[in-house]
Amino acid sequence: MEAVPGALGTSASFALRLGQTIFSSASLLFMCLDVQFYSYTCFSYLVTVMGLVTPWSVSLALVDAYSVFVKCLPRQPRVLLVIIVGDCALSFLSLAAACSTASVASLLAEVGSPYCPSKICSRYQLSAAMAFMSWFLSFASTLFNLWLLPSL
Amino acid sequence: MEAVPGALGTSASFALRLGQTIFSSASLLFMCLDVQFYSYTCFSYLVTVMGLVTPWSVSLALVDAYSVFVKCLPRQPRVLLVIIVGDCALSFLSLAAACSTASVASLLAEVGSPYCPSKICSRYQLSAAMAFMSWFLSFASTLFNLWLLPSL
Repeated sequence: MEAVPGALGTSASFALRLGQTIFSSASLLFMCLDVQFYSYTCFSYLVTVMGLVTPWSVSLALVDAYSVFVKCLPRQPRVLLVIIVGDCALSFLSLAAACSTASVASLLAEVGSPYCPSKICSRYQLSAAMAFMSWFLSFASTLFNLWLLPSL
Repeated sequence: MEAVPGALGTSASFALRLGQTIFSSASLLFMCLDVQFYSYTCFSYLVTVMGLVTPWSVSLALVDAYSVFVKCLPRQPRVLLVIIVGDCALSFLSLAAACSTASVASLLAEVGSPYCPSKICSRYQLSAAMAFMSWFLSFASTLFNLWLLPSL
C-alpha cells in the first residue's frame, strides 16, 4: 500500500472526514435550530446540501476508521473513482451554498432589523463560515484521492 | 504531441477559451453598463473576478490561436502547471461570484421595487447566468489540462 497521506484508508483521511462531519453538522445546527430558514431559498439550499454532506462524510469516516484500526481494506480503482466524483460534486455544491448564504446573510445584515434580527443574522454568518470550512476539507480529500488514483 | 482534445494548444482549447472570453465579458457588460453595481458587495466582487477572468482567457486564447494557426508551440510541464493552477483558482472564484450574485439578485427580486426595479434585476440575473457559463468552461479547461499533465 502506498503512503499517500490523506488518501482513502489512512489516518489523515480519517481526520479530514471527521472535520467535514463536524463542520457540516455545525453548519446544519446553526442554520436549523430555532430559525425560520425556509423563508429564503438559499438557506434551504444550504440545509439540503449539508444534509447530503453529513451522511457522506460519516460513512467515509467509518470506512477509514475500520481501515485504520481493524483491518486494512484493499483499494479498488472503481470505488476510489466513485468517491472522487462524489467528493468533487459535494465540494462544488457546498462552495455554492456557502457563498450564497454568506452573501444573503451580509445583505440582510445591511438592510437591518425587520428582515433579520442581529442575533439570528450572526448565526446565518456562522453557518456560512462552517460550510466554507467543510468545502475546504472536502476539496482537500478530493485532491489527495485524485493524487492516489494513477498509481492504482 | 499527444491528441488530448481540449488541452493547451489544440483547437478545442481555443474554442473553450473563446467561450470563456465571451461569457465573462458579457457578464461584465450586463453588470456594469448603467447599473450601480457598487452598492452591493457581491456585485462588486463579481465585477472584480470577471475583470480577472477576461484578460486571462484572452491571453490564453491568443496562445492557442498562435499554436493552432501559425506554429505548434512546445509544451512545458511547468507552464502547464501554472495554467492549471490559475484556471482552477479562477474557476472557484467565478463559481463563488456567480452563486452569490444569483442568490442576492433573486432575493432583491423577491423584496421588490424599492431596492431593485424589474429591468435591472433581470440584468443582474443574466449576469449571474453568464458567470455560471464562464465557470463551467474554465473548469472544463482545468480538467482537460490536468488530464494531459501526467503524460508530459
